[in-house]
Amino acid sequence: MAARLLEVYLDLLSQPCRAIHILLGCTNIPHTVRTVALRKGENRTPEFTKLNPMQKVPVMVDNGFVLTESDAIMKYLVTKYEVPQHWYPRQPERRARVDEYTAWHHTHTRPHAARVFLLEIINPPPPPGADPAADGLPVDQARLGRALSELEDTLDRLEDMFLRRQPFLCGDDITVADLLAVCELMQPEMSGRDVLQRRPGLQRWRGRVQAAVGEAFHRAHAVLYAVRDRHAAKL
Amino acid sequence: MAARLLEVYLDLLSQPCRAIHILLGCTNIPHTVRTVALRKGENRTPEFTKLNPMQKVPVMVDNGFVLTESDAIMKYLVTKYEVPQHWYPRQPERRARVDEYTAWHHTHTRPHAARVFLLEIINPPPPPGADPAADGLPVDQARLGRALSELEDTLDRLEDMFLRRQPFLCGDDITVADLLAVCELMQPEMSGRDVLQRRPGLQRWRGRVQAAVGEAFHRAHAVLYAVRDRHAAKL
Repeated sequence: MAARLLEVYLDLLSQPCRAIHILLGCTNIPHTVRTVALRKGENRTPEFTKLNPMQKVPVMVDNGFVLTESDAIMKYLVTKYEVPQHWYPRQPERRARVDEYTAWHHTHTRPHAARVFLLEIINPPPPPGADPAADGLPVDQARLGRALSELEDTLDRLEDMFLRRQPFLCGDDITVADLLAVCELMQPEMSGRDVLQRRPGLQRWRGRVQAAVGEAFHRAHAVLYAVRDRHAAKL
Repeated sequence: MAARLLEVYLDLLSQPCRAIHILLGCTNIPHTVRTVALRKGENRTPEFTKLNPMQKVPVMVDNGFVLTESDAIMKYLVTKYEVPQHWYPRQPERRARVDEYTAWHHTHTRPHAARVFLLEIINPPPPPGADPAADGLPVDQARLGRALSELEDTLDRLEDMFLRRQPFLCGDDITVADLLAVCELMQPEMSGRDVLQRRPGLQRWRGRVQAAVGEAFHRAHAVLYAVRDRHAAKL
């Protein structure tokens, strides 16, 4: 039998791509990473569009089976490959906790952390009356303030509800949910902003996640650290 | 052994609640519905807040196990109870297709259809300078136009991608994904708007979903039909 061929198309500046990279790295699933640089528009080439008409990363191709959406990719990988059960437990109640968090994630952690990053790094919106094509504009502080306030509400819930009585988001051990969450919360670090700075409970959780996945965490974040350092040098 | 006790806390004017109601109805899972009327603030009572500190419906309680998030609840129910496999197939590639759609749903079908409904029915935002506490204001046509345009993009993708080569969103048979989607797309009907009016492909899909679930579809939508009829009588 020929060896399985698992490929993942990622840009490590994308939060969900890093979550998949960490999972593959620390579970030793044999795979090949194909880099798709979003900033260079590599997601809009005819070849990539054929693979994913949505023109988004991540994309997984497992022996010809093409799958999108980080959440679905991670759950597929831990089901299909021999990895420790704790990543996505089979017991229905424990699995339901992971599905519950991942559903909540899409409407809370992900948009709220991403919005802060977008306002500070990607797309400082032009002030009223300014040329919308101009760049290098100052960050819109009013919108950033609202985005930070929404993010604080989400952080409160992560602390007070999901992590209230347990060390990881969905129980006593790490799951794919923790990877999705930690990668979103790392994203604003690109502008030097540690959103967990005044959150000792969430910092301890992030430390547990880092300890559980080892070097895979820093390998996935190497590009982000480089952007952060360049951003700091410019200030 | 005592009978299992399955309770679901629902408001049938909420889209994800209807999806759960249809699933329970057409699979004959024994259950009790507890109505939580959002318009009366019943989700903010101390009793309900104790059950779900997020103060949202749906909530499921299965022999003491409390679960939120419609997506997680439906996947749990079809795993835990004896229902036909097609609702959430066990085969990893087929299951991954359901997880792929449900993840996409949270950032496309759900917010885009819900926005049209919110602008037309719940919260016509006051025009600049108007008293924000006033109600009965006309719908903001500019914002509604933008929301409808975003919804059209999502409908294009449902047609051209998910339903391109198959009768249901995730394959040859109905899954929980179709229920989540159809209930969102029914929501703007409350203001008499059939968002599938010029979409024969999606209409046929909706017809297949209705045929597959039988009377459970109309039972779940009875309250929505009543609101629609009252709204039409006022025009």
